[in-house]
Amino acid sequence: MALKIVVAPNAFKECLSAAKAANAMLRGVQKAFTKYKIEAHAIPLGDGEIFVAPFGLGDGTAEVLITTNHGKFVPVTVQDPIGRDISCKYGIFQSRSDNVETAVIEMAECSGLWRLNEKEKNPMKTSTYGTGQMILHCVEHQKSVKRVILCIGGSATNDGGFGMANALGIQFLHSPFEKESNTTNGKLLSIFNGFPCPEQFLQKNVSSIDISSFQKLQQKLHDIEFIVACDVKNPLIGSYGASYVYGPQKLSTLLVPEKSDRDKVLERLDSALTSMNHMWKLQLSKDVSEIPGAGAAGGLGGGCMVYLNAQMRSGFDLVSEHTGLEESLKNADLVLTGEGRMDSSTDSGKVPHGVAELAKKHGVDVVFAVTGNCKKYSTYSSSTDEKHDPNMVAFAIADGPMDLQESLERSSELIENETFRICKVFEAGFSSKLKKDFIAQQNNKIMSQ
Amino acid sequence: MALKIVVAPNAFKECLSAAKAANAMLRGVQKAFTKYKIEAHAIPLGDGEIFVAPFGLGDGTAEVLITTNHGKFVPVTVQDPIGRDISCKYGIFQSRSDNVETAVIEMAECSGLWRLNEKEKNPMKTSTYGTGQMILHCVEHQKSVKRVILCIGGSATNDGGFGMANALGIQFLHSPFEKESNTTNGKLLSIFNGFPCPEQFLQKNVSSIDISSFQKLQQKLHDIEFIVACDVKNPLIGSYGASYVYGPQKLSTLLVPEKSDRDKVLERLDSALTSMNHMWKLQLSKDVSEIPGAGAAGGLGGGCMVYLNAQMRSGFDLVSEHTGLEESLKNADLVLTGEGRMDSSTDSGKVPHGVAELAKKHGVDVVFAVTGNCKKYSTYSSSTDEKHDPNMVAFAIADGPMDLQESLERSSELIENETFRICKVFEAGFSSKLKKDFIAQQNNKIMSQ
Repeated sequence: MALKIVVAPNAFKECLSAAKAANAMLRGVQKAFTKYKIEAHAIPLGDGEIFVAPFGLGDGTAEVLITTNHGKFVPVTVQDPIGRDISCKYGIFQSRSDNVETAVIEMAECSGLWRLNEKEKNPMKTSTYGTGQMILHCVEHQKSVKRVILCIGGSATNDGGFGMANALGIQFLHSPFEKESNTTNGKLLSIFNGFPCPEQFLQKNVSSIDISSFQKLQQKLHDIEFIVACDVKNPLIGSYGASYVYGPQKLSTLLVPEKSDRDKVLERLDSALTSMNHMWKLQLSKDVSEIPGAGAAGGLGGGCMVYLNAQMRSGFDLVSEHTGLEESLKNADLVLTGEGRMDSSTDSGKVPHGVAELAKKHGVDVVFAVTGNCKKYSTYSSSTDEKHDPNMVAFAIADGPMDLQESLERSSELIENETFRICKVFEAGFSSKLKKDFIAQQNNKIMSQ
Repeated sequence: MALKIVVAPNAFKECLSAAKAANAMLRGVQKAFTKYKIEAHAIPLGDGEIFVAPFGLGDGTAEVLITTNHGKFVPVTVQDPIGRDISCKYGIFQSRSDNVETAVIEMAECSGLWRLNEKEKNPMKTSTYGTGQMILHCVEHQKSVKRVILCIGGSATNDGGFGMANALGIQFLHSPFEKESNTTNGKLLSIFNGFPCPEQFLQKNVSSIDISSFQKLQQKLHDIEFIVACDVKNPLIGSYGASYVYGPQKLSTLLVPEKSDRDKVLERLDSALTSMNHMWKLQLSKDVSEIPGAGAAGGLGGGCMVYLNAQMRSGFDLVSEHTGLEESLKNADLVLTGEGRMDSSTDSGKVPHGVAELAKKHGVDVVFAVTGNCKKYSTYSSSTDEKHDPNMVAFAIADGPMDLQESLERSSELIENETFRICKVFEAGFSSKLKKDFIAQQNNKIMSQ
């Protein structure tokens, strides 16, 4: 009989990938248990969000899925948000949950905000073209792939998937500038061949999709399931839509310093998405504008629904399904999770929360999280505190007063040590006197019979 | 059947008394256990050292002993290190270990460095006279007291107990300045009646003790046991003695800025203690100079051995004996301790270390400490690391990056929360699946018989 220990952390943003965090925790676990045999499972997790390390994109959700499922990465040269060629990669693995050959594409790999310097951050001029190129490469070269998971966090774009669709071969039509025309008949419109960004969409007055190109794409993608990992619930347009909510963080204040000018940019972004939505409804009979998540990643969420017929799924659900987390949690004695920072907001703790929920389902009453910061995470469960997870207790990794810098630099060591300590307490609880007495009492009962 | 939990912390220096720390821990314990009945014991501890709070002397070892034993404090007016009258107190309690009426006197209460402003810090001019007055008051007014515990940490003095002895009625003799004389016969010497500090001792050339006054003191103290709580092992004189090792921190650099001048002061302090030691050997046949601890508190340790026939004991041993700690540790399931800062040096962690040792004696394999800082406390046990306590695991209370100030200000809340977390893990370990399975297995055996 061995104690079954599961360590299943998210990445610690800005310092450690989920895999590295899981390894640190595993070291702590292995050093802690000296009295009992253990069976330790390390399951790095992700929530579909990207993990940005100090010098670029780190090992994110794709890495987690590939590592856990012994998959591989495929290198590919595609365009960054403003059209420069860059080296990227996407992953392919056979899912342990259903054996389906699955690709995982992180849009931030090519179309992420981290690809741009401050002065390049302008969602009017950025495009998801590179993401489309990645998908196209995967579809054309990986014939056995029947499922594509798209992780769409961290985008630099607000193009409603205009670039992606264009890269996939969809042709857009526009009224030529030289002659104004109300005719929507294809004959009088030109094929759009500029850089597929919102500015071009508006300037060239793109108003129509070449239906035959859309049908060709549909045929090509016919037997592939597209899933978007997404926890954002925003609609496509309007004041809660992509442009107004997420646009500001994608637009550099160096580029457009005046608040009023910035507001005008957001307005134009929203009007571009509104036109696209109109076009989708009219020509493709698809109305996604109110579907939660259509506004994710600058409307790429909506674009994926329209062009790829994609399903939106919670990032954690997807990752936990394809990493075999649930299977591991069965009969677990101790479950440990973690994340860089935990508070009671919806923006953090998705992975620890998800682990706690799944663990509870399998009879593990409480899970323990290690984190860089749990100042805003309620310590006590309370029925009035809805934001609190009654079956999770979070430990901060700091071993004394320290600034954020020290915490980030020492994160691996600190995570290992805190995990060690938690396991030591668990072992002590497991082997406590009262338990021994209880067992002795049971033994006495046996002997006296 | 209930889980027996013991919380036994030291004070958290500069922020919380041991009693307040124990209360904070107790709150954490009580909120944590929801599945099992518990029997919680809070035992604030001390190590004989003083506890200096931000605005003066806080609740130290005396407070711990008085509170635990339901004793009382006796107010008394005595002199501070430079002769000003001040209000002080000492404690009296009936020890729970042997029912002996016991007094506890903290020398730092009257003769502590904290009593002086920066410019008054000069061990040539400070005296333990006030400490002697406290002892005298106790001996004369508390007839039932048969044991006096002296806590001698934090002194402002380096007088070898010269002031204390003088206050207790011992008369010192000196050659009058007006005529040089080698005669040691009392007739030609004057009775010293200046302020009993090292400067006066040297200036007036004090060279002799009035033996009859010493004998009177001996008679008066005949049936009182004096115990000095002391973990300092320094000898009285020489380069490892009181003056050279602890003198510097008692001498203000504002007063004597030059290093060479400061060295001269230390030399004079050492020569005064050397003379005293000579006098003790010659007249009282007592040679304490090499006894470990004779150099504690500026030689007050040695003075207590000579004048009071005092025994030196480790502060922790004394406190644990008189608080009933050991009794509480019997059959404990979970033992928690704590201290403001823990490292592997001998200067810190005496209380947690002591608790761990005692707990081990009673079958508790590992104790858990909460502390403000365990950066320098080894996390893992290792046979090569002698300074490490293999049966103690220390948790830092920080719940994220923070500076020392925040840690001090939030100490009570942080200690409570960290204790809560530790107890939650313990409870989880205690109620883990494997244990349930084990018990179920035992039950099956019973049922199948």
